[in-house]
Amino acid sequence: MEATTNSTWRKKLHEIIYEADTPSGKLFDIILLVLIILSVIFVMLESVSSIDLKYHNLLYIGEWIITIFFTLEYIARIITVKKPFSYIFSFYGIIDFLSTVPLYLSFILAGSNYLLTVRALRLLRVFRILKITRYVGESNKLMKALRDSRPKILVFLFAVLIMCIIFGTLIYLIEGEQSGFKSIPVSVYWCIVTLTTVGFGDIAPVTPLGQFLAALIMITGYGIIAVPTGIVSAEYTRNTKPIKIEDEEYVHVNTQICQSCGTAKHRDDAKFCHKCGEALHQAENLG
Amino acid sequence: MEATTNSTWRKKLHEIIYEADTPSGKLFDIILLVLIILSVIFVMLESVSSIDLKYHNLLYIGEWIITIFFTLEYIARIITVKKPFSYIFSFYGIIDFLSTVPLYLSFILAGSNYLLTVRALRLLRVFRILKITRYVGESNKLMKALRDSRPKILVFLFAVLIMCIIFGTLIYLIEGEQSGFKSIPVSVYWCIVTLTTVGFGDIAPVTPLGQFLAALIMITGYGIIAVPTGIVSAEYTRNTKPIKIEDEEYVHVNTQICQSCGTAKHRDDAKFCHKCGEALHQAENLG
Amino acid sequence: MEATTNSTWRKKLHEIIYEADTPSGKLFDIILLVLIILSVIFVMLESVSSIDLKYHNLLYIGEWIITIFFTLEYIARIITVKKPFSYIFSFYGIIDFLSTVPLYLSFILAGSNYLLTVRALRLLRVFRILKITRYVGESNKLMKALRDSRPKILVFLFAVLIMCIIFGTLIYLIEGEQSGFKSIPVSVYWCIVTLTTVGFGDIAPVTPLGQFLAALIMITGYGIIAVPTGIVSAEYTRNTKPIKIEDEEYVHVNTQICQSCGTAKHRDDAKFCHKCGEALHQAENLG
Amino acid sequence: MEATTNSTWRKKLHEIIYEADTPSGKLFDIILLVLIILSVIFVMLESVSSIDLKYHNLLYIGEWIITIFFTLEYIARIITVKKPFSYIFSFYGIIDFLSTVPLYLSFILAGSNYLLTVRALRLLRVFRILKITRYVGESNKLMKALRDSRPKILVFLFAVLIMCIIFGTLIYLIEGEQSGFKSIPVSVYWCIVTLTTVGFGDIAPVTPLGQFLAALIMITGYGIIAVPTGIVSAEYTRNTKPIKIEDEEYVHVNTQICQSCGTAKHRDDAKFCHKCGEALHQAENLG
Repeated sequence: MEATTNSTWRKKLHEIIYEADTPSGKLFDIILLVLIILSVIFVMLESVSSIDLKYHNLLYIGEWIITIFFTLEYIARIITVKKPFSYIFSFYGIIDFLSTVPLYLSFILAGSNYLLTVRALRLLRVFRILKITRYVGESNKLMKALRDSRPKILVFLFAVLIMCIIFGTLIYLIEGEQSGFKSIPVSVYWCIVTLTTVGFGDIAPVTPLGQFLAALIMITGYGIIAVPTGIVSAEYTRNTKPIKIEDEEYVHVNTQICQSCGTAKHRDDAKFCHKCGEALHQAENLG
Repeated sequence: MEATTNSTWRKKLHEIIYEADTPSGKLFDIILLVLIILSVIFVMLESVSSIDLKYHNLLYIGEWIITIFFTLEYIARIITVKKPFSYIFSFYGIIDFLSTVPLYLSFILAGSNYLLTVRALRLLRVFRILKITRYVGESNKLMKALRDSRPKILVFLFAVLIMCIIFGTLIYLIEGEQSGFKSIPVSVYWCIVTLTTVGFGDIAPVTPLGQFLAALIMITGYGIIAVPTGIVSAEYTRNTKPIKIEDEEYVHVNTQICQSCGTAKHRDDAKFCHKCGEALHQAENLG
Repeated sequence: MEATTNSTWRKKLHEIIYEADTPSGKLFDIILLVLIILSVIFVMLESVSSIDLKYHNLLYIGEWIITIFFTLEYIARIITVKKPFSYIFSFYGIIDFLSTVPLYLSFILAGSNYLLTVRALRLLRVFRILKITRYVGESNKLMKALRDSRPKILVFLFAVLIMCIIFGTLIYLIEGEQSGFKSIPVSVYWCIVTLTTVGFGDIAPVTPLGQFLAALIMITGYGIIAVPTGIVSAEYTRNTKPIKIEDEEYVHVNTQICQSCGTAKHRDDAKFCHKCGEALHQAENLG
Repeated sequence: MEATTNSTWRKKLHEIIYEADTPSGKLFDIILLVLIILSVIFVMLESVSSIDLKYHNLLYIGEWIITIFFTLEYIARIITVKKPFSYIFSFYGIIDFLSTVPLYLSFILAGSNYLLTVRALRLLRVFRILKITRYVGESNKLMKALRDSRPKILVFLFAVLIMCIIFGTLIYLIEGEQSGFKSIPVSVYWCIVTLTTVGFGDIAPVTPLGQFLAALIMITGYGIIAVPTGIVSAEYTRNTKPIKIEDEEYVHVNTQICQSCGTAKHRDDAKFCHKCGEALHQAENLG
């Protein structure tokens, strides 16, 4: 008898936590979302020294309350689910774990509480919660296009990295340490900054030859940005093809006109008018 | 009698203000465009201290004259239109309102007159006024492609934002406050600056690990810029496909089968079989 | 008699100057190209003070020699062409004129000789000279795609400009003059710098609200770069549509006509008419 | 007898070095990859002064060991291959040579050992070694799309360069030397930095006219980035196009099989076999 009660209780909790169709499930999900957003804002604000000075205790308490709630939720998720391990090691399971642990760790490792912003990943649930299937569909299509493009994009990024190592060494040899190119790793970093057209400007070439090489790197970066774009574009276009003529439901028609009723646009192989049933002249069929 | 005159007067004013086909309507629209451009220039110049010192009065008077004209025009638009409220709460109605209010507000709230640059939005009328249907057509097609891509772009930007929050926290923990990464919000801001390849350079990582993470963010940003481009590109390509089914040479056929010779794929409007000339049953034609 | 000699002389000169098929015409074109490149380099080097100090006279004399050559060439082009005015006001005619005038102007207006770099435009002749039709073809296709995309791109840039005016005003009001946002025009300039993801960093927001707005502008710029790309991409794809036919369900048909029933469009490998079963003549099958 | 042993020995070495199918060949390739990565890291770290101070000897010895290994490998490759010269002057042959020479050169030319980072190019072998044909296929498709786009991209970059020379001269004349635009070459460099949306910010216009021109350059750069993207995108799409049939010369065929000769793929409307002239069964025509 008690086992049944227990199982009913677990079933209900499961319904609330995992499903978003019942009113209580919906409420739970909305509360969760609000708490996630709040807690991310709390952690971010805590790092702003002027705000932290004034409201430290408030933020600290808020963080603890939300973390305890998340911990309880995490435990509830494990208890109520049928296969606890498949949840624990799933994408969301790991994120849920990482969303509670950092604050406990902060006793041992100062500053680790900032890692709580990993909770932002939990916001990805919003798509599931809001049941906006349109968004989920889009997101799936996007993911598919990205997944299909992955090998190509990886080949591309690998080539870019090799390019950056070689160009970085060259610029290091040309500019030397006095221009800020302190070492090859820093020069490779600068090369990535330049090739991706970010261009911080904290390090910049000053010799004519260095500027010439920089111009070359920029133009290369400007030109090859086309490559990943072209890949994803082609991949995505392939997944969203419009209606095509080869469609079984369309046939070619010609300009032949029925001599009896004047109807035009007959099938190329028509022998009789589809309007009045009159025989079409074979001679005209030649055209 | 007077009501008729009144209504004639309103009708004429409506013609001048809302239509651009009559000579007076065209003249009105051109004057409007010139005044909009002039007033935006006035407001911008007023903010340049060296120019404001010399020509303050001139600019101030010019602004007031144009604003009074716009106010009168706004009132005229409300009076002459049949459904005033649908105008007031329409896109252009709100812009017209926002184009007059800030100057009156500047008595209460200093500096609010600069908000008059919102008038620039009124320039969007130029497409309607110049009657360049080609441009309007393009603009509509563009808007359609953008509207169709919106859910995908939103999913994308949402994912980018979450990425920036997490990367921003990491760089804050790695670099710390002495490199300019004062707080997590500032670090997230820097992360957006880097990921979008803007790269101001007011804040830049200095530690090797920070530069490594920055390089990762840049390459990510450089790689995923392909995503929105691919989306809009595919969406736009879909809207401007070269061969369309409406093509005169193709007609739709259905699955109906001739009871006499068994020929399938008749035109939707076929009354007789094009193969054997047998009458097709009308009842089946409905499907 | 003399007139004939004169006309023969002009004809020959025309051949040398305007055509690139004869050996002398080819030589002339190559000399021209070398001189254009040399003169652009001369003008650029003259602006480098360290080089100018040492080699001023050399560069000055070189510039004058090339300019006199170009002047003579310009006169020769006018003399030998049939319709001088259509040359003078053509694209290349205007460039040729602008390539000689600045040096003469430098007597009146100091520094105008630097405008000689406009000569770089003459390098566009390289495509004509090298007779690389492939390149010319590509260039034409590119130009066509760009010309077709123009109205859309203009609508897009117009919208971007209006956006920059409004965002520029907002950031001016938020950041104020102490952060470098001296006036609305400067703020609009900064907004363009940010939206196009250039990001010089000479001006950068420092207040949280300003940084938030900046992040918004960047993400907008990062997102809408997809629009012109999508446009040109779609336009270009349209011009280079391939036709592929490996599809199993389609076979190639030819124009052969059955001598018995007049049916056309038989499979290439057809031996009998698919309509009436009559043997098709093998001889005609060869075509 | 000895000749045979020799040839067997060479054959076995060839198998190990050039092939990756046997266990020893695989092991050799993996060791090679690890050594390449190690040596690139060694060279990079050596340029970091703080690390070099501590571990100079370790890095120096490591570099020499790897270089000697590479030298032996290079010699072995020449000995075991059938046509040594076609290897020496092949892409990989030249890279292998450049991967050993710089260290020996460093006795004569200080700093040339840094050129060892050219070894990073050897990492391209990873695709061959790992036998990830999928990656190789993608890489080939990418290379094809890039090769096909080359003439177009070159025309584009040529036009961009001419644009940068002219805009660079204009900004030099407008801004002058006091704003950092020291000479025309530097201004052209700045123009490339701006047009490619890199925007270091080490040089930035300060006059209103200069900022206006800069805004123009940026918008141009932002707009024309669409061109290479559109090109590669179209080229790439062309390689992965689906099938189209609006072409007049193709007709739809079905899976019907002639009962007399067994020929398949008849036109949908065929009544007789196009191969043997046998009548096709009407009943089967229904499908």
